[in-house]
Formats: sequence, C-alpha cells, structure tokens
Amino acid sequence: MGKEIINVGVLGFGTVGSGTAQILMNQAQLLRERSGVGIRLRRICDRNIAGPRGLDVPDGVLTDDVNALLDDPELDIFVELIGGIEPARQFILSAIEKGKHVVTANKALLATCGHEIFQAAERRKVGLGFEASVGGGVPVIKAVREGLVANSLHTIMGIMNGTANYILSRMTDEGLAFGDVLKEAQTLGYAEADPTFDIEGIDTAHKLAILATLAFGTRVEMSDIYIEGISSISPVDIEFASGFGYNIKLLAIGRRIDGGLELRIHPTMIPKSHLLAQVGGAYNAFYLIGDAAGKIMLYGLGAGKMPTGSAVVADIVDIARSLAMGIERLTLPAGVPFGALSLLKKRSMDLISGRYYFRFSAVDRPGVLARIAGVLGEFGISIASVVQKGRRQGASVPIVMLTHEAQETRVRDALKIIDDTDVALDKTVVIRIEDLTAIEDNAV
Amino acid sequence: MGKEIINVGVLGFGTVGSGTAQILMNQAQLLRERSGVGIRLRRICDRNIAGPRGLDVPDGVLTDDVNALLDDPELDIFVELIGGIEPARQFILSAIEKGKHVVTANKALLATCGHEIFQAAERRKVGLGFEASVGGGVPVIKAVREGLVANSLHTIMGIMNGTANYILSRMTDEGLAFGDVLKEAQTLGYAEADPTFDIEGIDTAHKLAILATLAFGTRVEMSDIYIEGISSISPVDIEFASGFGYNIKLLAIGRRIDGGLELRIHPTMIPKSHLLAQVGGAYNAFYLIGDAAGKIMLYGLGAGKMPTGSAVVADIVDIARSLAMGIERLTLPAGVPFGALSLLKKRSMDLISGRYYFRFSAVDRPGVLARIAGVLGEFGISIASVVQKGRRQGASVPIVMLTHEAQETRVRDALKIIDDTDVALDKTVVIRIEDLTAIEDNAV
Repeated sequence: MGKEIINVGVLGFGTVGSGTAQILMNQAQLLRERSGVGIRLRRICDRNIAGPRGLDVPDGVLTDDVNALLDDPELDIFVELIGGIEPARQFILSAIEKGKHVVTANKALLATCGHEIFQAAERRKVGLGFEASVGGGVPVIKAVREGLVANSLHTIMGIMNGTANYILSRMTDEGLAFGDVLKEAQTLGYAEADPTFDIEGIDTAHKLAILATLAFGTRVEMSDIYIEGISSISPVDIEFASGFGYNIKLLAIGRRIDGGLELRIHPTMIPKSHLLAQVGGAYNAFYLIGDAAGKIMLYGLGAGKMPTGSAVVADIVDIARSLAMGIERLTLPAGVPFGALSLLKKRSMDLISGRYYFRFSAVDRPGVLARIAGVLGEFGISIASVVQKGRRQGASVPIVMLTHEAQETRVRDALKIIDDTDVALDKTVVIRIEDLTAIEDNAV
Repeated sequence: MGKEIINVGVLGFGTVGSGTAQILMNQAQLLRERSGVGIRLRRICDRNIAGPRGLDVPDGVLTDDVNALLDDPELDIFVELIGGIEPARQFILSAIEKGKHVVTANKALLATCGHEIFQAAERRKVGLGFEASVGGGVPVIKAVREGLVANSLHTIMGIMNGTANYILSRMTDEGLAFGDVLKEAQTLGYAEADPTFDIEGIDTAHKLAILATLAFGTRVEMSDIYIEGISSISPVDIEFASGFGYNIKLLAIGRRIDGGLELRIHPTMIPKSHLLAQVGGAYNAFYLIGDAAGKIMLYGLGAGKMPTGSAVVADIVDIARSLAMGIERLTLPAGVPFGALSLLKKRSMDLISGRYYFRFSAVDRPGVLARIAGVLGEFGISIASVVQKGRRQGASVPIVMLTHEAQETRVRDALKIIDDTDVALDKTVVIRIEDLTAIEDNAV
C-alpha cells in the first residue's frame, strides 16, 4: 500500500524556495484533500538559515547541511531550488542515487546536463518533476507531456522570458530606450543585477531546449539553438516596426521541417494582430501546434516567487499522489524512455530563409540608397519597402528596408559588404520578420 | 504488476468517435512509447456500423451492440461519445458498475448528472476522464485539476463556445447580421442544425458548471448559472461597442466573491486591449486566476473531430499509464473526494452591479431623451455617455447609453418602465460591460 505522509525537503530558501514553503505550509489542508495524502515540509536547507523570509518555519525544519536531506531515509521528495550547474547537479544526482524523487526549477541545469539527469532518474525509477523550469506558473510541461500526448507536435513558439518581454513592452508602450528600461526593471526586481541570461536569449534557450526535447521527442543540446538577444533593439526599430504593423518580441521558435528540427531565438517582428504580439509586460506565452489539437496557446507569469512556487508544488503533488497509490514507477522525465528519444538533425541557420527588416545607418548623400540597393540586388535580395525619415545632409539617417523572402546566408554576406563601405556609419540592424501564418500553415 | 495491453471500447462512431479511433490506430506506436503500454482499440459500437468514416477498421472491431463492450471482461476503458443524457448516463453507470474506467466528452451529462457519475466512479474506484467535455483540444481540465493544484482559484472566465465566438467574430469583422452568419456557420458545419445550445449559452453553461466544480471545489447545478445568449446582438451593437473600445464576446464568468460564488454567462463588452477580446473565430479561451500562479490563459480549438479526439486520447493515456503501473486507485473525478466538495452559496444576479450598455429604440421626437434619462435617474442609474446617430423625424433611431456602475435589479426595473412607455418602439437592448481589471484585481 501507499504512504500516508510524504516528506519533502527543499534545498534553497531564496525567492522560489520561500514561495514553495509558503504554499506547502499555508495550503496543507487543501493539498491533502487534492492529493489524498499528507505532504509535510520536513526540511529546508540553505547556507543562510538566519535571514528573514516572512514565514514562521517550525523548529527543526531549517538546516544548513544538505546531507540532512540527502541522508534522511524518511525523505521522499528532494526539491532543488538553488539554481546553477554545480553543486545543484551533484546534489540532484546524489538524491536520485538514494532513491529520492526530485523536483527542480533549474532550467540551466536541465538544458545543459538534462540527459545525464533524465537517465539517472529513469534508471533509479524515481520521479523527476521540472514544471517550474519552464514558464513559471504556466503548466506547459504538463500540457506537452500529458495534455497533448495524442499529438505529434510540429511547432512550439513563444515568449519565454518575462524580463526581456517586460523590457520590449515598456520600450514599445513608452518609447523608452533599452538601457533605461533595463535599469528600471532592475530597480523593480524584474531583472537580475547581471541580466545577461535574460536579455541575450540564453534563459529562453534553456527553456526551448527543455520544451523541444519533450515536444519533439528528441535530444537537444544548447549548441543546437541559434541565439540572439534584444540588447541591440532601439526605440526607432520598434517605431518603424509598428508603422509596418508589427510588434517586436524575443521569440523562440522550434519546429520540425524537412525531416529536421529548426531551433532559433531572436528578436522577431510579428503581426500585431497575432495573439503572441498581444502578450505584454512580464508575461510568457507558449504557442504549440499539434497534428490533432491544432493551435494551442498557454499564457501566464513565467517567473516570480508564487507562480514558480505554484509549479514546484504541482510537481510535488503529482509525485505524492503516485506514492500514496503505491506506485513504484513514475512518469518518465522525457515522456518516453530516454533511449526512445530520436536524434533529429538540427537545421542550420544557413538554411533559413525569410523576410528581413534592415536599418542602415548611412551617410545622407545622393547615391547612397542606390549603392545599398545595388549590393542587395547582387545577392538576390529583393526589397519590399523603403522608408527614409528626417534628412540631415551629411549626417547619419536611418534608412529602413523590408525585404521579400531572402536567404539568411545571402543576407549575411550582403550586409557584410554594405557595412564595409564608406557610406555605412554603423553596423546595420537586422530583425527577422515572421508572419507566423507561414509557420502555422506549414505545421498543419 | 500492471497490464501490458489496455483494451479500449468506444461507444459512438460519429465525428469525435472517428477522430478518437483515427488517433488510436494511426498513432499506436507513439502512444505505446509515451504511455509505456499497448493501447488497443478493441471495440467500436455504433447504431449505424455501415456508414463510411474514412478509416480502415479491422474486422471484428465494429459492433452495434453496446453489451459487447459492457460485458467484455477484457475491456479496461469504456469511452462514451454518443452525447445527450440518456442512454449515455445508463451506459456510463453500467460501465462503472462493471469496474471499467470511463472516458467521456459528454458535457451536458456531466453538468446535469455529474454528481451521480462522480460518486459512482469514486465508490467503484475507477478513473473518469472528461478532458474532452470542456475546451476540445485545450487541456484545461488537467490544468485546473493538476497544473494549478497548488492554487486557490478565485476566477475562471472565458470564451467557451466556438460556434458563438465564430458568429460574433464574423459579425464584428464583416458587419454581418446574426442570422446570416448563423446560416453560413451551419453550411460550413460550425453550427448544428439546431443551434440553440450554442447560441443561447447552454453549452457554455455546461462547461462552466464542470470547470467551476473543479476550480472552486464546490457543487454546481445548472440552475446556479445565469444564462443569456447572443441571438439578440445586432451589428449596430457591435459597431457602437467598437466605437467605445470594446469587443462583444459571449463570456462565461465564475468567481468567488463575498464568500459565495458568482456564475454567469452573457454577451459582454470587454476592452479590445484585453487578451480575451483578441480571441477570434471558432477558438476558445479559458482565463484562470489563482492565488499563487496569478493570471493564466489557455487558448485553442474547443471543438471538432481531431481536437476533441486529442483530449479523449489524452484521458485514455492517463488511465492506461496508471493501469500499466498497477494502480488500483485513480485520480478522483472532482480532484477531491466528492464529500469534500463545499456547498458555496451561489450569488444571485440581483446582487450584481456593473456598467451597462443600453440601446433604446425610441421615437425620434423632442423630449424623448429627457424622459429616458429621467427614469434612469429615478433608479439611481447615472449615465456615462450618450450617442444618438442618424435622425429620422418620427422614425425609430437608436439611442445608446453607457452607464456608470449600477445595480442589476435597478437596471431591470428602470428598463421595464421605459420599455412600457409610448416612446419605446422595441425592447431595449442591454449588454453588460466588464473592464475585467476590476474582476482581476478583486481576485488577487
């Protein structure tokens, strides 16, 4: 028979750790009704156990020794919330080895060492919950692994980083500069002191790697993903985009195409009329296309103490329910046996073709436009529209062009030549345009 | 130990039945990998087994005798897809009695006889899956019951009927009349020959009843829900709404308020800037607010052969996975023991107050506006804006008013008086306005 009390140990008493502890303590009665078993917060481990968290933790629960969790034979579920690769990896592998079920919010770890951890959990037949690693409170892992289990997914797209989306949304709504909004976001606690992961697309890539593994049933490495961040986006680009009917979003795109897999993250102009373009503030959205269910979108807060705590506790309850029923074997981390994951060929960015937005910083003198257009023409890049605003003789003015369908490699080559000419005063800004309907139609 | 083959019997070989059969047959390999067990479509029962479904069903699978499913000791999961109350109810209760797990898409049945069926399944310790009863391919039941298990949900709102949303969207985009779009929708197969359930809000109410039971952990009866359909909406109302910055949607609202539960469905003006206002075509959207996760939206196709089939198969896989692991006790239908469901007091519409849109069909002569305004004033209803377009002396012209916050009962009383005066040529059209931010802020 199953257990009557499930003992949980939480490693990491920071933001997410205290959100998790708060839910486990304050909602104990609700969680017991819903899981059919008592879930007890038996241990919280943190290097700093003295700091105030606004929570009245019972005596004996707090410890600064992780072995008090790992070596506790009564502990059923080990919750890792310290983030980073090491020592999180070692602690998780050790917990698995000792037969403990694991819940983690650690996307960086899963995106880089997921294979090792997935296989260890599978071998030891323990549960591994990581809903909190992608999309905070949005149950997107569960949707992909269980809700859409009957589907072959063709496409997963989305806005997967709340900080980047907050910055772009503020820039769009208020016409503010990137640096100013970043500073504001840091003051408000929406952005880290070191915002690199968020604004350079790395955090988004971690999430795309995890989601793509599950959605496409294939192994994904970080190096499979093309990554470009938002730090080069200016208010002027956002304004031009708007004039053409687009919003700029840091979009993650994963899709099956030509028997391979395309994985890319970059600032993207998407039509304002598309639901993804309407996702503002610090919100995330995941847009999935399945062969049976069609288009599905999940929207919500992708980060934060309580949303992420909500996802951590959902995983705890899933495992607790199973343990209460006396199950030995839990859902496999990847949704299928690790050995059944395919090795889908990753499609290089060189094979991408699409439409592009260019903003040239060119000297404003006669013949410049002709020269730029000439180079583009040589590379077979045809221009759909040109906008030139505000003329100041001899000074730099933005010349904006939207292209028709063009090949990424040719775009790169053409811009290299243009940026090397004496009319170019700065590197050309390039933003990809996705009308999304092409991706959507291709998928179904 | 668990089973190695899970035998499934499907009752009803119509649209959803053939979608389900198609997925079970064509995706057998994928489903085996993902569930860890073979799922065999052992029987399909339909009164008409001769009709073509574009599916090559193996010999011996088709039957017109439901007892070939119910009395088959090898059958593990009974899938009911015939819809309607009887005989679906009898068949499901009989299957449960015989210890079979049940999957159903039958929202009308669950909304009206759910208590009986939930209790029967709980007593007999069988699984009862009904993801397909709400939101087609959108895994909203799973999100509420599992993904958001750590939350007290305060609010569930949404666009829960694709047909009604298709009609309103077409009216909005093309300026077409209700009747014309309905006919078009019937021709395209988006609307039934008898569209009453869809356009009068009854189908939406079935879904709200099911969702509210799970979301709020309380018993809900159909009579607890205030229901108003969309058949009285004219293009002119949509146009006026647009001028004020609103789209009109058939919105279902369920929320905890003042210790009770408010459940209502009616055409609603919502701000165009809100994500729900952007949900067009035959799409559904579910907007949930939890105390931990915050605002969550799930969007997708709420009906159709393959989306609904996707949800049916997801439920089958969930049960199959559990059976493969040798579990005897499955997740409880209501998420908690039936006896733990509360009896939250349902809030009468009389207690609602909000902002209103009125379109008066009044004779166009001096003093009419004053007379209408006078009556409203007597009932304490204060006017925020008035629009009167196109004057034709002596003929009926629309006078449109938007109110400030007013009480539903007073609105009803005032309009009764106005509609009884000799200046009123037709019944006043009333549409409620929800800015949604008030509901959202109240919730968290």
